[in-house]
Amino acid sequence: MVQKSDPFPSRLKQPKDPFLRSDPVVHSRNQHRWEGPLDEVSLSRYERDGFLWFEGFFNQERMLPFFDELVEMAKDEKLNKSEKVIHDPNSGELRSVFGMHELSDNFSRLTRDPRILGMVRQLLGSEVYIHQSRINDKFGFEGSGFDWHSDFETWHAEDGMPRMRAVSASLMLTDNNEFNGPLMLIPGSHHYFVPCLGETPELNWRDSLKAQRVGVPDRDSLARLAERGGIEAPKGPAGSLLLFECNTLHASNKNMSPWPRSNLFFVYNSVENKIGKPFAAKRERPEHLAARENCTPLTMHDDFPELAHQGVPPLKT
Amino acid sequence: MVQKSDPFPSRLKQPKDPFLRSDPVVHSRNQHRWEGPLDEVSLSRYERDGFLWFEGFFNQERMLPFFDELVEMAKDEKLNKSEKVIHDPNSGELRSVFGMHELSDNFSRLTRDPRILGMVRQLLGSEVYIHQSRINDKFGFEGSGFDWHSDFETWHAEDGMPRMRAVSASLMLTDNNEFNGPLMLIPGSHHYFVPCLGETPELNWRDSLKAQRVGVPDRDSLARLAERGGIEAPKGPAGSLLLFECNTLHASNKNMSPWPRSNLFFVYNSVENKIGKPFAAKRERPEHLAARENCTPLTMHDDFPELAHQGVPPLKT
Repeated sequence: MVQKSDPFPSRLKQPKDPFLRSDPVVHSRNQHRWEGPLDEVSLSRYERDGFLWFEGFFNQERMLPFFDELVEMAKDEKLNKSEKVIHDPNSGELRSVFGMHELSDNFSRLTRDPRILGMVRQLLGSEVYIHQSRINDKFGFEGSGFDWHSDFETWHAEDGMPRMRAVSASLMLTDNNEFNGPLMLIPGSHHYFVPCLGETPELNWRDSLKAQRVGVPDRDSLARLAERGGIEAPKGPAGSLLLFECNTLHASNKNMSPWPRSNLFFVYNSVENKIGKPFAAKRERPEHLAARENCTPLTMHDDFPELAHQGVPPLKT
Repeated sequence: MVQKSDPFPSRLKQPKDPFLRSDPVVHSRNQHRWEGPLDEVSLSRYERDGFLWFEGFFNQERMLPFFDELVEMAKDEKLNKSEKVIHDPNSGELRSVFGMHELSDNFSRLTRDPRILGMVRQLLGSEVYIHQSRINDKFGFEGSGFDWHSDFETWHAEDGMPRMRAVSASLMLTDNNEFNGPLMLIPGSHHYFVPCLGETPELNWRDSLKAQRVGVPDRDSLARLAERGGIEAPKGPAGSLLLFECNTLHASNKNMSPWPRSNLFFVYNSVENKIGKPFAAKRERPEHLAARENCTPLTMHDDFPELAHQGVPPLKT
């Protein structure tokens, strides 16, 4: 049953037009406490487009240990059999691993990187915690795409996230280029909530993480938003960072190249926006998809050895 | 049975390594008779890459009548039920129409455009005829992709095309951009013949035109060729033209945008390279896929009203 008071009704039986969001995009406006590393140009761009792209945010070398750790995880039989791992519907290869920040100290420290955390707090205007973390992998010639969707639509309907006050940080572990299935976004789409048709099936997440069938915006709304804002696919070397607002429509195509594409996602949610009862699903999703227990506000780490010298590792001799 | 004398063995039971082609890429070298509009820079680039890209070759306006005619064809029930029309395996929408130059005078005249025909004769060093013509359509959010393949591999194995002496002209009827599934090519891949595994199934073409399963190069060879030459996806406005050598590996991804992608293909074959018995298939494919009867050398048309003023239509008042 959809609650009458639901400000973002979705999974409906009857179509409903997209409408303008009422929530702010940058939540720290006029709050000195949450000043941060982003200047007015960046904040305004984030408000306008719903994302910010930082080409080469980290050194490529700094990504290598994470990629190595991931390769090890792919070999971990126990992990592969757990629900934290999603396999590609076509190839059977590893597609996503959830709960990365709990599986690995390295990844956990990365979520608390002072620069990233500073920006995220500034955007959300509060302390933050990790709602979900995952890695999305597309092996060469393998990984199939993801259809257009808003993450917030799912987190609201299936996880009970009350408002649009979350941001995803996507860190490229490999180069992202035109041919290996980079993330595509519709600039400006985060201004609109697109109610989706179709009731949420029981245990929907078991299938939806392979290929989404409900929570998919109708094509007419997608076309209108893409005509209005265009489509962008940020591309760059390993170590590049994308921050995108929880309601920005995004998708990706199949990897047509021999070059693997591996992107980390950390979803930061405001501590003032903790999740409750799902708005349009019968059951809650498991903890590794939507944190309910582990919502401790993140503190910046200051023990990262590379940090002192901007992530530059010693030259090999 | 694969003939022992087959210079391009494919559809094999045992894997066989890719090998360098023995056929020339530009067939008119040192033949004054086939001099043409391409200069040495273009000819050398075609030899090196296996394709030439002409952004905005025609005016966009000149493409509109063809696109309109296509929309009419899509409504033609009789045509839609014929074997000349291939529908998308997922959406059921129109994917390809074969024999375009026989269905329409407009399209037929286009195949005989003096500039295109001049270049094609120069590349093939002889008179030419149309081996196959088709339109490939990808509607918004619809059209699925085409996996990597060499056209020559199919034309040799299934149509009995003896040598690599054909060229495809692909004319964009709509804009081709990063998001509507543009053609991708591996520059330099035409230098190698990649024998493919797997016997040709009976009446293979009925399925292969929707989703190719045999005649697909192995991933290791693809990876080596893409590492060597990279991948390119020419993009440009309606009216742009791509000439690509029959053995250049190409593919395309799904259309993720609301913008339709509609590309015309004319395959020109040398009159000295007419097709015979299939090299690796039991039966010949039908005439609309591989011309056996209708191989009259093309003559340049000189009755195209726009030609006199370079395709510029009168200004509307």
